[in-house]
Amino acid sequence: MTLETVLDTLDKDRDGALERLFTLLRIPSISTDPAYKAECRKAAEHMVADLSSIGFDATVRDTPGHPMVVGHNDSAGADAPHFLFYGHYDVQPPDPLDLWDTPPFEPRIVERPDGTAMISARGAQDDKGQLMTFVEACRAWMGATGALPVRMTVFLEGEEESGSPSLPGFLSGNADELKAEAALVCDTSMWDRDTPAICTGLRGLMGEEITIHAADKDLHSGLFGGPAINPIRVLSAILASLHDDDGRVTLPGFYDGVQETSDAVKAQWAALSFNPAEFLGGAGLSQPAGEADRSVMEQLWARPTCEFNGVTGGYTGEGFKTVLPAEASVKISCRLVGDQDPHAIRAALRERVEAMLPTDCRASYIEHGSSGGISLSPNNPSVQRAKTALVDEWGVDVPTIGMGGSIPVVGQFKDLLGMDCLLVGFGLDDDRIHSPNEKYELSSFQRGARSWARILDALSRPVV
Amino acid sequence: MTLETVLDTLDKDRDGALERLFTLLRIPSISTDPAYKAECRKAAEHMVADLSSIGFDATVRDTPGHPMVVGHNDSAGADAPHFLFYGHYDVQPPDPLDLWDTPPFEPRIVERPDGTAMISARGAQDDKGQLMTFVEACRAWMGATGALPVRMTVFLEGEEESGSPSLPGFLSGNADELKAEAALVCDTSMWDRDTPAICTGLRGLMGEEITIHAADKDLHSGLFGGPAINPIRVLSAILASLHDDDGRVTLPGFYDGVQETSDAVKAQWAALSFNPAEFLGGAGLSQPAGEADRSVMEQLWARPTCEFNGVTGGYTGEGFKTVLPAEASVKISCRLVGDQDPHAIRAALRERVEAMLPTDCRASYIEHGSSGGISLSPNNPSVQRAKTALVDEWGVDVPTIGMGGSIPVVGQFKDLLGMDCLLVGFGLDDDRIHSPNEKYELSSFQRGARSWARILDALSRPVV
Repeated sequence: MTLETVLDTLDKDRDGALERLFTLLRIPSISTDPAYKAECRKAAEHMVADLSSIGFDATVRDTPGHPMVVGHNDSAGADAPHFLFYGHYDVQPPDPLDLWDTPPFEPRIVERPDGTAMISARGAQDDKGQLMTFVEACRAWMGATGALPVRMTVFLEGEEESGSPSLPGFLSGNADELKAEAALVCDTSMWDRDTPAICTGLRGLMGEEITIHAADKDLHSGLFGGPAINPIRVLSAILASLHDDDGRVTLPGFYDGVQETSDAVKAQWAALSFNPAEFLGGAGLSQPAGEADRSVMEQLWARPTCEFNGVTGGYTGEGFKTVLPAEASVKISCRLVGDQDPHAIRAALRERVEAMLPTDCRASYIEHGSSGGISLSPNNPSVQRAKTALVDEWGVDVPTIGMGGSIPVVGQFKDLLGMDCLLVGFGLDDDRIHSPNEKYELSSFQRGARSWARILDALSRPVV
Repeated sequence: MTLETVLDTLDKDRDGALERLFTLLRIPSISTDPAYKAECRKAAEHMVADLSSIGFDATVRDTPGHPMVVGHNDSAGADAPHFLFYGHYDVQPPDPLDLWDTPPFEPRIVERPDGTAMISARGAQDDKGQLMTFVEACRAWMGATGALPVRMTVFLEGEEESGSPSLPGFLSGNADELKAEAALVCDTSMWDRDTPAICTGLRGLMGEEITIHAADKDLHSGLFGGPAINPIRVLSAILASLHDDDGRVTLPGFYDGVQETSDAVKAQWAALSFNPAEFLGGAGLSQPAGEADRSVMEQLWARPTCEFNGVTGGYTGEGFKTVLPAEASVKISCRLVGDQDPHAIRAALRERVEAMLPTDCRASYIEHGSSGGISLSPNNPSVQRAKTALVDEWGVDVPTIGMGGSIPVVGQFKDLLGMDCLLVGFGLDDDRIHSPNEKYELSSFQRGARSWARILDALSRPVV
């Protein structure tokens, strides 16, 4: 059987796969730091060479920032279904360096007493380790059979960790080349160490910064305190008005487009080994603070939020200064689900602010992004086929889950290319991505590659 | 007549007086900056020498910080009434230097087209110019008559601009030496350019810093947003609860001890040329924001406030960060009047905070001072005698006024030495103290000295 041969090939070449990942991990492709510009290009060129070696027509594609990598492999034949794989070759800065047990760009295997092993390096998981699970799956298919089971485009970005400034332009400018039946993204986590998961829901994000302006300069709180309006007081009243006592957001129309979670999905979630007390306890909390009548899981995966990410005004240094500030500001982000319209919500928020402004105050606004929520039906054909493949590999029931966060590229694939994303990843919650001592489980790397080999096979077949 | 001789002496020695002030102004005695420690001592030693030259038994008195200057002049005889004059020889830093039209420590006279002149320098008003009005008055009395009309102690501080850390200890440790019938303080302003004023009411101050602690670390607003409590939301609700719609503070017992302003005082205030629209307009405001049923003047001089001086929490830099902060904090100051008890108000504030804390949140507190309001009866004998002297000098009705601010030393004289303060000063609202291009009207300096010469005379006489 063809797939068995491919999986055997992966198993036999484990050492080679690890060495190839290590080579990539040794390149400090830190996209946010201009000092590492050449290293980012080096990583892109390395990936082009690697993809070329396994039958991809791959090129480095310049952008105003770090380059993109695009490679096409049509070995499956012109009639085979076409998928796009997205990953990113750039990494977060490793600071603070002194908290690393081993140097961040000298990857190594660290074995635990129980015999499990992990790969330690910056990027070991996010996203070099994850993207190489897919590349190794392709390599095995090419090695074992001389072809991939589907037409593939591999698309790697080098600015994911620095806000992806070049991405929308590149997607729009190369839409025909990049559009495929669906995108495969390996940048998410497993449910737990033994259970992979398919993420079918991501929350969107509406970001807004609001500044309340009062007097034309900071005033002395003794000489003006009383008659002079205090913008912190105005801002506090506005913020306090945004939630009711049950934790619901009070903006008119805020919940328009929010779908109720179906009983079937709720039942599936209930079957997951999710412990709300443990989840909250991990952050030093004990009681869910969101909407009163919703479970923690629903609050995270299926309900919108309106959160205050930062507030500032007046004197905030050590000690005390008797100032009446001229202004106060807040950064607000709303996580959105279903069909909530980020633009309508921004408008409702501004309307609330304006309605609560007293005489002598005005507000100014800065937009910080608008993306709607993403949801894929559990019945989507790609989801169904990937699920079968993952069940075969891991031998467990594979849940479709939501994620509270947002992955901007997923929204952009949808908005700019009309393309859904299949989100399958092999990270674990304790991988310390963006932090010192980032790691990736050796089993995630090896079984991740086997999983993608199976998914590629499944994607080439009709849904049963 | 003796007083006329003293005033003549002052008029004849105007150039000498100005040169002596310039000598003091040339010493950059910036108390808050350790680099100017030696300059502070130099200013103290200069004042000791100057006071010694006019019959004071004056010494530099070391403290844990910058030294005090204490000088006694008993030339009036053992039976004469004893007064203490308080001033400070330290100044604010001159930054930003590039906004000064002339160098801050190179004092000079700047003449206006209309013939009026001002002294330009850091400290020209606050407080070197003001304190030298008193010293020059003493010099003229000594020069013209060989004696002062009252027993005087001059007490100069060198840490007023840096929080007076050594003052309470020095007052307690030298109470017997410093206690007098009343203290004379020259650190306030005139009503307007032609009208001096006696300040008989100062608001007290209760300062409190409150931090709301939620999760044990900053959280990701996507991964935790919803179920994790947001401390900015908690803090905003607390702050929004502190005032009602009419601008009144809602803490139970907050207004205990606040006396209603008498009709007589209100009538006196109404006669003053105070224009609320102009006052607010100077800060870019148009509408009084304090208690709805109180005039601006009452709000400033006779009503307490609860103001937010600074608020901070979460990410406050450029751009956006999707963080759920672990904590948020506010600095609050209440200006107090009458017999309001700062300790009771602090307790009520903390009680409100604790009552509004949800599960999983706790609050921590930092005290930033507690001083009650100060009020002197307009019928106080020192006030009556000073008023007569000022009317004689300026030829106008002299109002007793309130001030919205707090002068901590006034409260400390009262609390630690049981001594009232007579607050007479010759500053103007546009003197730009603490700012670039600080100035003092030449007329303030010259007529201020004449005013003190008259007040010293008046204080030696019985009230008529």
